[in-house]
Amino acid sequence: MLHDPNHLYIFDTTLRDGEQVPGCQLTTLEKVEIAKDLERLGVDIIEAGFPVSSPGDFQSVVELSKAVNDVIICALTRANENDIKVAAEALKYAKRPRIHTGIGTSDVHIQYKFNSTHDAILERGIAAVKYAKQFVEDVEFYAEDAGRSNPEYLARMIEGVIAAGATVVNIPDTNGYCLPHQYGNIIKYLKENVSNIDQAIISAHCHNDLGLATANSIAAVQNGARQIECTINGIGERAGNTSLEEVAMILKVHNKEFGSLTSNIDSKMFTYLSRKVSEMMNMPVQPNKAIVGRNAFAHSSGIHQDGFLKHRETYEIMRPEDVGLAEADIILTARSGRHALKHHLERLGHHLDKEVLANTYERFLVLADAKKEITDEDLLTLVK
Amino acid sequence: MLHDPNHLYIFDTTLRDGEQVPGCQLTTLEKVEIAKDLERLGVDIIEAGFPVSSPGDFQSVVELSKAVNDVIICALTRANENDIKVAAEALKYAKRPRIHTGIGTSDVHIQYKFNSTHDAILERGIAAVKYAKQFVEDVEFYAEDAGRSNPEYLARMIEGVIAAGATVVNIPDTNGYCLPHQYGNIIKYLKENVSNIDQAIISAHCHNDLGLATANSIAAVQNGARQIECTINGIGERAGNTSLEEVAMILKVHNKEFGSLTSNIDSKMFTYLSRKVSEMMNMPVQPNKAIVGRNAFAHSSGIHQDGFLKHRETYEIMRPEDVGLAEADIILTARSGRHALKHHLERLGHHLDKEVLANTYERFLVLADAKKEITDEDLLTLVK
Repeated sequence: MLHDPNHLYIFDTTLRDGEQVPGCQLTTLEKVEIAKDLERLGVDIIEAGFPVSSPGDFQSVVELSKAVNDVIICALTRANENDIKVAAEALKYAKRPRIHTGIGTSDVHIQYKFNSTHDAILERGIAAVKYAKQFVEDVEFYAEDAGRSNPEYLARMIEGVIAAGATVVNIPDTNGYCLPHQYGNIIKYLKENVSNIDQAIISAHCHNDLGLATANSIAAVQNGARQIECTINGIGERAGNTSLEEVAMILKVHNKEFGSLTSNIDSKMFTYLSRKVSEMMNMPVQPNKAIVGRNAFAHSSGIHQDGFLKHRETYEIMRPEDVGLAEADIILTARSGRHALKHHLERLGHHLDKEVLANTYERFLVLADAKKEITDEDLLTLVK
Repeated sequence: MLHDPNHLYIFDTTLRDGEQVPGCQLTTLEKVEIAKDLERLGVDIIEAGFPVSSPGDFQSVVELSKAVNDVIICALTRANENDIKVAAEALKYAKRPRIHTGIGTSDVHIQYKFNSTHDAILERGIAAVKYAKQFVEDVEFYAEDAGRSNPEYLARMIEGVIAAGATVVNIPDTNGYCLPHQYGNIIKYLKENVSNIDQAIISAHCHNDLGLATANSIAAVQNGARQIECTINGIGERAGNTSLEEVAMILKVHNKEFGSLTSNIDSKMFTYLSRKVSEMMNMPVQPNKAIVGRNAFAHSSGIHQDGFLKHRETYEIMRPEDVGLAEADIILTARSGRHALKHHLERLGHHLDKEVLANTYERFLVLADAKKEITDEDLLTLVK
């Protein structure tokens, strides 16, 4: 088996499912910058684009393949030979390439989108995986709208594509429809009814239309899934995808519940990366967003502050430092030295060379004279 | 029993747990306006404030009590006689008053916040409920930090306060710590181990620190809870409370799963009320927020648009109209008549009298000449 069934794979799709939202489009250079950050963050797979969809997407997959080393680079396709051939070409520089192909398996998709039959769609899915295997060893198959598919048919499809060589089987709740126990039960059903299921990793791909993407992903893991597809800030189609930072912090806070299943994620990068993605993609994060919202660690009510001051653990299950948030918002003044500025910029993920730092420090002093207190947000504006 | 165990009560705390967030403070007049909207929306209970905390909060509870008719008005207290006496006074005009009293029941709260013992805290909780019953029939008890409390001790406390007359028992996951199955299991444990549990309604009060507030509330209902405490847009302390609009739409989309449990919520008011609360409280809603985010119903990718055009149900589990969102963003132009303007304003919840409408129409025409296309947001700006 290609992948480790005792590892929980974090599959980031910020640059594919996230980036396809109107207004979120990035240049290839911007994508490369985010991809390098994602590699530092510790994700296992980066979905880099949908190569056949546009020359820009094709080029992004090429450049991201060159830019990262340890991370698997994944390219999306539909279940047809041209999509797959183009994806394989875009992946030619990837050290660890993966093709992500698939087809809709729900009745409504088969009937209305493809105007086809269950048997014909089954054949198309299997043929796509076989074709992709000619180019790469690592092939992930998605059963679109699995959340609303007939379980028996879904099991037949999954068994067929694993037999054809799929290394990962993705069970998307495409419309964000499922309740957590329903989504968990689909995974459980596949574990119990697909004879070759242990030869592949099961992947959870959830959407947040009912506010349940994170809970559904966790329910999937509890029932045997070993990959979570997610995005920074939970961005993505409609109400978005599962939030990477939420599932990672759940694994951390509830590590006893998940035993040996850990991720490689460095949660201290969350605040930095959340702000960067939000700015680059022009997608604001609301103050009450879990983990990365401006108020996520702000204890405001009198009752809470009292308890908090008496004993921190009374009202705190995570520490702001765990997500890279400075404990105090106010961190620097006009009396701070160059070294302090460097330290705080590095905490925020900006490693400047000597010359740029000197120039930034000059501008910092002008701002600090005018503003008295310099916050993290001011610093990020300074280095933009 | 005072309340109906076959009804699912929606308890809105936008004006208490939501309003206590820094920057979200409202005037009493603004609170009255929101409360009237919440009554039209169909919530069962409005938590109106924490009367002892400030003269402003006291006055708000008085005015909200006068302003609404059918909805229960609830006032928060700690477990002491003065808090309760002041709350009862603030509630004197309420047609259906409720006092919400309680105390921390987790070890960390008892030891570090109260520097007390389990037995002494049990006595204080029971005494508070008995005292509150001297003023009102409807007394809700909260066991703060129930999510991390010892289950046996929690059960003793709940049994004691129900025996003392509590009509509703609130089991808050104060720190947003629990996973859905853990929170569901707490409710299940209480159903099975508290002898008089059927004499009270169990309430779920969840926080969103790990992105699980909605899922936890649903898990509670599946295990016997019959009240959900929530806020518009999920605002509230830190990462906020359960989103009212998310739980209401889950009940609607999954009505088969919840059988006879329905709420009275008119989901068509969601878009209007979400925007109003967001503006009044200065709390932006992110575009990818479930149900009420700007992109929540936007199908953007090529694959999705194709399926969507062939058959709407392919990618849609809810209709934009269900949440009061116009299907098209572009709705009015300079060629639209007064009647069309009136229609769209009413759709957004603004019922203007003839004179104000005439004046608004004049300003609408000026704007429509300049802008070509008038959106819902433009209309809301016009009537502000």
